[in-house]
Amino acid sequence: MVDVFSPAERAALYRVIESRRDVRAFRTDPIATDTLARILGAAHHAPSVGLMQPWNFIVIRDAATKARVKALFEVQNELAVANYAGARADLYRSLKLEGIEEAPINLCVTCDRTRSSPHVLGRHTVTDTDVYSTCCAIQNLWLAARVEGVGVGWVSILDYDDLRPIFGIPETVWPVAYLCVGYPRAFLGEPELQRRGWATQLPMNQIIFEDRWGNPPIETRGGP
Amino acid sequence: MVDVFSPAERAALYRVIESRRDVRAFRTDPIATDTLARILGAAHHAPSVGLMQPWNFIVIRDAATKARVKALFEVQNELAVANYAGARADLYRSLKLEGIEEAPINLCVTCDRTRSSPHVLGRHTVTDTDVYSTCCAIQNLWLAARVEGVGVGWVSILDYDDLRPIFGIPETVWPVAYLCVGYPRAFLGEPELQRRGWATQLPMNQIIFEDRWGNPPIETRGGP
Repeated sequence: MVDVFSPAERAALYRVIESRRDVRAFRTDPIATDTLARILGAAHHAPSVGLMQPWNFIVIRDAATKARVKALFEVQNELAVANYAGARADLYRSLKLEGIEEAPINLCVTCDRTRSSPHVLGRHTVTDTDVYSTCCAIQNLWLAARVEGVGVGWVSILDYDDLRPIFGIPETVWPVAYLCVGYPRAFLGEPELQRRGWATQLPMNQIIFEDRWGNPPIETRGGP
Repeated sequence: MVDVFSPAERAALYRVIESRRDVRAFRTDPIATDTLARILGAAHHAPSVGLMQPWNFIVIRDAATKARVKALFEVQNELAVANYAGARADLYRSLKLEGIEEAPINLCVTCDRTRSSPHVLGRHTVTDTDVYSTCCAIQNLWLAARVEGVGVGWVSILDYDDLRPIFGIPETVWPVAYLCVGYPRAFLGEPELQRRGWATQLPMNQIIFEDRWGNPPIETRGGP
C-alpha cells in the first residue's frame, strides 16, 4: 500500500468533503449493484471500537415498504412543524425534507449493541462508542456515494423505534439512521438550509478552543 | 464547483478510507498550524442535523493536561483488563492502546446539546442526532488527517465525564471523543487488532440485508 497521498489526491478528498450534500431530490434511475457494493464497502472500512463492526445495512428497494416509512415520516413531520410559527413555519413547510419514495434505494443503518460481547476492547467505559462507530461508517458511506455521483439524505424525522416491526429488527439492535440513496437531481453548491436562509455556517474560531473550553485558539488570538 | 469526480479522484477516496488506521504510536514532532486548520476544517464540513454544527474541538498541547488525562486512562484501563483472563489478558496488556503523552496534539471533541435550541430542524424525534453529527465530523477529521500523513487514535478507555473539570466543559455539552493526533511511527497495512489476532474483519455478506433484518442481499443469494 502506497503510504503517501499526492497533492492531487489530497485535494480530491477535501473536494469530496466540501461538496457532499444532504440530498432530498432524487432521480428514480437505479444504482448498479457494483456501485452500491463499493459504497457499502467504504462504510464497512470505518473505524470501530475494538474492531466490533456493530453495523448492518438493510437495503430497501420494495415500494410498499418505502410507502410505510413515508407514512411514518408524515406523522412525525406534522408534529415537528407545530414547533414553528409564522414565516418560519411557512419556510419549514416549503422545504423538501426527504426523498423516501423517489430514491431507488433506502438504507436502514443499525448498530448491534451486543456484537462481540460481552468484552469489546475499549468499550467498557463509554458504551455508546458502538453507536459512534456506526456513525463513522455512515460518513464513509456518504463520501463514497459522493464520488460515485450518488446522493444520500439522512431522514431523522422518524421515530426509529417505529422501524423495528417493519424490518424485524431485534431488540438489542438500534436503528441509527434511515438514508435515501439515489442519483440526485442536482448537487447544490451550499447546504440547502443555508441557501434557504434557515441556518448559516459557524465561523471556525467559534468551534475551536485551546486547552480549555472557551479559550480562543492560538491562531486567532489578537485577530479581527 | 466541478460536479463529477474522475476515476483517479474516486480511487483516492477509497484508498484514504482503506488506509486510515487507529494510530497509537506517534512521533513527537509538531503539526503545522495550517495542517491542523485543514484537518479541523474538514471536520467542520460534516453534515449536521438542521445545520446545527454542535461540535467543538479543544486543542490540547499542554503536557501537564495530557498527563492528567493519561492518569485517567490508566485507572480505566486497569478496570478493563480485569475482564480478561489467561492468554487474552496477556495479549490485552501487550497492546498499546493510546498515545496521549507522545502525540503533539490531543483533541477533545464535544457536542453542545443546546446549540441552535430549542427547535433544531430534524431533531425533534431523534434527539441523539446531534451526537451522530459530531461523529460524522470526527470521521471527516480522521480521513483528512490521513491524507496529510497525520495519524489519529480515539481513546475510548476514559470516563468522559472525568474530562469535564479538566477542560471546564459545561453541563449541557457532551465529550464525545478524546483523540491523539500526530505523525505516526507507521501506518499499518491492516488494523492492529486484526494483525495481533484480537479480532477479524466480518465478511460483507454478514452485514448487508435485503428489505428485512436477516434476509441475505440479492447479490449473495445462491452464492458460495
